[in-house]
Amino acid sequence: MPSDVEIAAASPMQPIEDIAAKIGIPESEIFRYSPHKAKVSLPYVQGRDRREGSKLVLVTATSPTPAGEGKTTTTVGLVDGLAQIGESAAAALREPSMGPVFGMKGGAAGGGRAQLNPMTDINLHFTGDFAAIAAAHNLLAAVLDNHLQQGNALGIDPRSITFKRVLDMNDRALRDIVIGLGGPTNGVPRESGFDIVVASEVMAIFCLATSIDDLKERLGRIVVARTYEKAPVTASDLGVHGAMAALLADALAPNLVQTLEGNPAFVHGGPFANLAHGCNSVTATQTALAHTDWTVTEAGFGADLGAEKFIDLKCRFTGLRPDAVVLVATVRSMKYHGGVAVADLTTENVEAMLAGMSNIERHLANIRDVWGLPVVVGVNRFPSDTDTEIEAFTKHVEGLGVKVEICTHFADGGKGAAGLAKALVEITSGQKPELSFTYGDDLGLAAKAETVAQRIYGAERLEIPSAVAKQIAQFEDEGYGHLPVCIAKTQKSFTTDDAERGAPSGHVVEVREVRLAAGAGFVVFVCGSLMTMPGLPKKPAALAIDVDSEGAVTGLS
Amino acid sequence: MPSDVEIAAASPMQPIEDIAAKIGIPESEIFRYSPHKAKVSLPYVQGRDRREGSKLVLVTATSPTPAGEGKTTTTVGLVDGLAQIGESAAAALREPSMGPVFGMKGGAAGGGRAQLNPMTDINLHFTGDFAAIAAAHNLLAAVLDNHLQQGNALGIDPRSITFKRVLDMNDRALRDIVIGLGGPTNGVPRESGFDIVVASEVMAIFCLATSIDDLKERLGRIVVARTYEKAPVTASDLGVHGAMAALLADALAPNLVQTLEGNPAFVHGGPFANLAHGCNSVTATQTALAHTDWTVTEAGFGADLGAEKFIDLKCRFTGLRPDAVVLVATVRSMKYHGGVAVADLTTENVEAMLAGMSNIERHLANIRDVWGLPVVVGVNRFPSDTDTEIEAFTKHVEGLGVKVEICTHFADGGKGAAGLAKALVEITSGQKPELSFTYGDDLGLAAKAETVAQRIYGAERLEIPSAVAKQIAQFEDEGYGHLPVCIAKTQKSFTTDDAERGAPSGHVVEVREVRLAAGAGFVVFVCGSLMTMPGLPKKPAALAIDVDSEGAVTGLS
Repeated sequence: MPSDVEIAAASPMQPIEDIAAKIGIPESEIFRYSPHKAKVSLPYVQGRDRREGSKLVLVTATSPTPAGEGKTTTTVGLVDGLAQIGESAAAALREPSMGPVFGMKGGAAGGGRAQLNPMTDINLHFTGDFAAIAAAHNLLAAVLDNHLQQGNALGIDPRSITFKRVLDMNDRALRDIVIGLGGPTNGVPRESGFDIVVASEVMAIFCLATSIDDLKERLGRIVVARTYEKAPVTASDLGVHGAMAALLADALAPNLVQTLEGNPAFVHGGPFANLAHGCNSVTATQTALAHTDWTVTEAGFGADLGAEKFIDLKCRFTGLRPDAVVLVATVRSMKYHGGVAVADLTTENVEAMLAGMSNIERHLANIRDVWGLPVVVGVNRFPSDTDTEIEAFTKHVEGLGVKVEICTHFADGGKGAAGLAKALVEITSGQKPELSFTYGDDLGLAAKAETVAQRIYGAERLEIPSAVAKQIAQFEDEGYGHLPVCIAKTQKSFTTDDAERGAPSGHVVEVREVRLAAGAGFVVFVCGSLMTMPGLPKKPAALAIDVDSEGAVTGLS
Repeated sequence: MPSDVEIAAASPMQPIEDIAAKIGIPESEIFRYSPHKAKVSLPYVQGRDRREGSKLVLVTATSPTPAGEGKTTTTVGLVDGLAQIGESAAAALREPSMGPVFGMKGGAAGGGRAQLNPMTDINLHFTGDFAAIAAAHNLLAAVLDNHLQQGNALGIDPRSITFKRVLDMNDRALRDIVIGLGGPTNGVPRESGFDIVVASEVMAIFCLATSIDDLKERLGRIVVARTYEKAPVTASDLGVHGAMAALLADALAPNLVQTLEGNPAFVHGGPFANLAHGCNSVTATQTALAHTDWTVTEAGFGADLGAEKFIDLKCRFTGLRPDAVVLVATVRSMKYHGGVAVADLTTENVEAMLAGMSNIERHLANIRDVWGLPVVVGVNRFPSDTDTEIEAFTKHVEGLGVKVEICTHFADGGKGAAGLAKALVEITSGQKPELSFTYGDDLGLAAKAETVAQRIYGAERLEIPSAVAKQIAQFEDEGYGHLPVCIAKTQKSFTTDDAERGAPSGHVVEVREVRLAAGAGFVVFVCGSLMTMPGLPKKPAALAIDVDSEGAVTGLS
């Protein structure tokens, strides 16, 4: 099979205005950044209602393994699959960060015959959204340090500043820095650092905002520091949230591209899935819902983290409700959860696979019993999967009363996901499901996090060191107790230990720290190490990237 | 008279595709980033020849004073003036940096009835060019620090690194920083800093590049550091210039907007006028020349710095040749050069004005006698200028054999610059002038700089401390001696002392340091203090900027 880049290059793209026209967006309302990427005008988008009967499908997965699951590939394949059976569908997906593009993994736009196009544009600062988000973020940081410099009228304690700066770059040397050196005209010396832009609270806000007004309000609520009296200092106290929103207003218009089969994809925003909610912008999801019968969207990591945050954060804030869930799984990843080493994943091993299916069982139970959503399992079939394995997998899941569809969109494009598309039509033909959140707004912050740990992760309890408990109490005293929680932990396990595969129970989840994201509207419970500024590897992917005289970019993978 | 913002808001814009059509650029070749801003496709632009008989006009000015000269206003007014007399014309101008927009001065798009539109878009990250330039720059910085982290195979001396990072933000706290702290996984600790993006060598390269290939070659030549053996280390040694060019390929397409009177303006790139050459991209200038009979472009600061660099750098590198120069002057600025205090500039004072005209005389002599170019003086008339002053001014300049046109485009738009437009038609009707550079390629670096100081600034000689002389000798030994020079000094005086008005002679120009910009293709002679990262004032302009529910931005001035 040819490489992703070769497949993409061999797939002629349709003019983006034709893609827009397909779903009823007039040419006058799109801004064509190139022949094959566009923004859809925000005033046009903002007023629009969800199309009558339009359905929202959430694609999520079992706990991620080195074997790979293929969530984005399945999202793209499913959109093409729905089109194959005559349905109108669009994807709503995150924009990739440039950090990993130049670092380890190359691009992020699906793979095989289930890709987004033009992948080069999508991966290389696209329509400039991340730059606008970084500029808005860094404007707040500059105004904050300038406030210290110009007399510190608000009485900000420089040691309390939690708001760093951001770049869309993997740059480890900026993780821990000392700024403000060189004398009295150069600011107030203090420790600080840079995060990658996807870790910015401004990014989370951008993706949750339902309008420019909502965006501005949320920006104003960002807490950047404390006064010497420990009172929170916000962007609105600094008076800069209006300018930040002005910087973001153009970027808030959703981006439109296409799948290899010429179906629409809204690719917009991309917050981290650990310290933020990990899904594309509300604007993009709503635009897709307004223009197609099926919107297929994706949440980061496995269902315990990504789907949980999609539901308990994005859905809670916006009123969006998924009609069904696709749980992506692979035979290989089940074998991995059953204890098989990475090198042995291509060897048939039904017993290990069945043992590893404790993982999918836990995720299915969460989706069905905790959140009350209909679900179908999409198996992303690999060439090494044997028929025996596939049969045993299917039998096991169907024994739980869940439909299984074997998908080959990676090799076959939309045709390979047509079965999954039909299954979705079937399971969504009845009454609209009643979504339940994992916890209610009224619980205390720690109780909310513990409820997630117990109901979703199968943990026995949360362990909260006294310093962290004191911080939680402070947030609650300050009136942030009503916020939902966002748990940052390893995506590889239901526990906080990467090595614990399958579906462990009765474990303890230790909370290392809590962070207030008052603008995004949640409190982050950090349960494990958190990398907010990746580094480049010994041979960065950047070294293979080039451009020819005509502007054609090569070396992205 | 209404404010700039009110005038702009009251001027209906034409669809940008209509502006493009006016000068023969088909709609299929523009990318409409909004209804009123577009990029012109690079493949379309790259192949095009200068239109037969098309003329290039350089707008420059007397030495800048607090009274204001109005170069951008005159550039815009002149384009509208040419259109008023039936000529086809376009402006080629720099993009403003966001730093000053949020800092001291608000936007930069002309003023009064001689403005660019839409000024909000132009001032607020526009089409993302500066973000792409910052990303390319910071990718090189990240790869450089990563090289140190991953074993330093090239043997780079970390103390020798001259390449900083950049942001498009006024952020004084980032001027002097220590990076790489926090332990062995966080890079190699060292001193560094951030510059504003307009100070980036990548910005200078972007503006000088005549093609993607030229861009990539120049990027590859950037010297970022030295090895322990003092050998230069380039971006191409690090292998990252291809990825940098890939990041810039989309941005290299010129941006198209319009004047208030609906004439085309290519606004693209914006390097500093001190440590770089201070004019818009070659791409923008060439695109204008290919599509109109008149291209009006602007150089930074006064003619001694801006026009000199336009000629000795941009023209030298590209073969571009101006057909005529407009020297912008004001009665007020001549009075200032004659010694009048700022508070008294609105009081009639013919004597002081005539004394201050030593400044315009020096600039006119440089333009005519050194560079061999025809020139007309455009007086940007202010309401406080008396008829007596205007008459005396005109008489004096005409006595030098130079045409004077009194312009009122600020108050009257293009009609107010129609006289200047006619004067240009007249002075360019004869034979094409033969441009002379200030110095030849074969002189040594110090001799080149001294030639500029003597011929253009009226200085007696250059003073070069021995450490700097050693550095110059090193550059020459390394084969950089053939490069032209770029002198960074105060724009306020022909000397290196801000306070010396008029046209001092016989002074000494002290060189503080020299910097190699091997990618841009020149050696910077720093003769005075150099601010490469501005700070925010006590009340940043950002605090007044806001956006409403519909996305309309207010508070930009």
